Amino acid sequence: MLRLPSEPVRQVAAERLAALAKPVGALGRLEDLAAWLAACQGVCPPQPPSAVRAVILAGDHGVSADGVSAYPREVTAAMVRAFVGGLAGASVLARQHQVALRVLDLAVDADLADLGPAVVAHKVRRSSGAIDREDALTLAETRTSLAAGEAIARAEVEAGADLLILGDMGIGNTTPAAALVAATFGAGAEEVVGRGTGVADERLAHKTAVIAAALRRTGDRAADPVQRLAALGSADLAAGVGFLCAAARSGVPVLLDGIVPVAELGVAEDLEPGVLAWCAAGHRSTEPAQRLALDKLGLEPLLDLGLRLGEGTGALTALPLLRSAALLLGDMALLSDLAP
Amino acid sequence: MLRLPSEPVRQVAAERLAALAKPVGALGRLEDLAAWLAACQGVCPPQPPSAVRAVILAGDHGVSADGVSAYPREVTAAMVRAFVGGLAGASVLARQHQVALRVLDLAVDADLADLGPAVVAHKVRRSSGAIDREDALTLAETRTSLAAGEAIARAEVEAGADLLILGDMGIGNTTPAAALVAATFGAGAEEVVGRGTGVADERLAHKTAVIAAALRRTGDRAADPVQRLAALGSADLAAGVGFLCAAARSGVPVLLDGIVPVAELGVAEDLEPGVLAWCAAGHRSTEPAQRLALDKLGLEPLLDLGLRLGEGTGALTALPLLRSAALLLGDMALLSDLAP
Repeated sequence: MLRLPSEPVRQVAAERLAALAKPVGALGRLEDLAAWLAACQGVCPPQPPSAVRAVILAGDHGVSADGVSAYPREVTAAMVRAFVGGLAGASVLARQHQVALRVLDLAVDADLADLGPAVVAHKVRRSSGAIDREDALTLAETRTSLAAGEAIARAEVEAGADLLILGDMGIGNTTPAAALVAATFGAGAEEVVGRGTGVADERLAHKTAVIAAALRRTGDRAADPVQRLAALGSADLAAGVGFLCAAARSGVPVLLDGIVPVAELGVAEDLEPGVLAWCAAGHRSTEPAQRLALDKLGLEPLLDLGLRLGEGTGALTALPLLRSAALLLGDMALLSDLAP
Repeated sequence: MLRLPSEPVRQVAAERLAALAKPVGALGRLEDLAAWLAACQGVCPPQPPSAVRAVILAGDHGVSADGVSAYPREVTAAMVRAFVGGLAGASVLARQHQVALRVLDLAVDADLADLGPAVVAHKVRRSSGAIDREDALTLAETRTSLAAGEAIARAEVEAGADLLILGDMGIGNTTPAAALVAATFGAGAEEVVGRGTGVADERLAHKTAVIAAALRRTGDRAADPVQRLAALGSADLAAGVGFLCAAARSGVPVLLDGIVPVAELGVAEDLEPGVLAWCAAGHRSTEPAQRLALDKLGLEPLLDLGLRLGEGTGALTALPLLRSAALLLGDMALLSDLAP
């Protein structure tokens, strides 16, 4: 069993929050967030996260050849280059908040070797199987992907991360993510399907049919988290699961982004109970599968701004709130300081 | 009629947002916010607000002697000293986000002259009338308060503000604020009454009765915004109205905090139509009157975190989102830049 954030420290934080120069509870959800961060760091007051490192796991998906996305899969590789060039939405937000941003090609269906080992060292394969007709990965590829994600997280921790952000890039990736959410929480395809980055009605019906077929094809194998990833996931999604497990084992909290990282957390919590306790949700995406998974996991996102970009952008946008929570807990006067 | 933010520039911003390297609309409400900021600045892309100045208008209220608040009115003066000392919640957040924070005593029921003219130069009176039994202010005091708020805003603009934040401090101030909202939008007392910073059930019924009595006592005078402020407001609330009018006249956008500034905006928009167009809502407070006023004004807050502290804390917490919106609009690649 994983070590959990410190309950005694969370209690100390709750007591300090109640003693601050404000009405009890008046900072709302920032108070829960501050106490969670204190518990994760094992110290109250906690430090505002200053060495924040964000990782975007990129990959293509067999289903994207098949009309589940509004975009061609060539966009995935182009966006990896945009991250490397510092031009994407996540790049802009990472600069704003002094976050070290790294993109990794786990399964992009293109040769990105010219971007160097920092991007491609953990590449597992090109794309993944079309999950309505075949497994996404072999079991061996799944284990390789899980190990890759763990290694990526460990490297970020060794680089000094005091908070990790997990993002995603991959045309079509909301389809396997929604399938994983359905399989993890026993929901039907129609409960988890959304418009991704912008599919129209006819594509929505097709996407639902793809996920329903994938769930039927997988059957009882869905009960096992590794088999679930092999049947319904992808190399980038499996790596995300490994990333979250390794971050939690290292005791480094993670701020999650949209549907993909939240789907990964659902699998990670099955694989290694306790991972959830190290995670906070940055934003509510427009994807129904994310809402379902957040409800089942008991996570309430910090932001609800209708973002549906992925890349970690929702988590990056929410990051200053986490820093505010820590600073308020540490730096506000106590009510007793103000008494004459 | 007030000059409004530039519609042509808003349109240019909308076109640029649609051309960025992301699916159309994928940045959700950050896109509206970016376009609004561009329209206010009259230029696209807009600068992320860097010279942000926050003003907390402090005052006591006649009704606070009468059990509408969980706290004694002595807390107002103590909190003014906490702002000056940099120890309050708003102080912590202002430092985090490089915001110049100023507190002004408009009507604190204490002698704060030792804090110097920066704090007390605009003081109108000590406290205000108990609005269930008497007018809060004379008409002359109301006009003085409006002019004080205008002068305060002009000074901030002259100091170089490119964004203003309006906050409040005053034990009991949610009662006159809710009364103003009810009078502005023709709602009943029971529709606008909330628990403020933490009143229990019996006090809630009392607060509702106070507001109902105040509305009855005021009668048709509520139709006129200046008379409304005199009957139901206070010096600090009237100054907030003047502050918003002057900010809008200067073409400087304002990020609003909770129930008190939103109540002030309702009156300001009646007094000088167009003020609303220069305002964005930072957060949803727990007060029903704020929700009602936001709905009527057509404002959707950026955050909904259960904050109920006032002081500008909700707006300060939301500030980095406004900066993110401007940076994304300005610094992300265009889709056409990524094409091979």
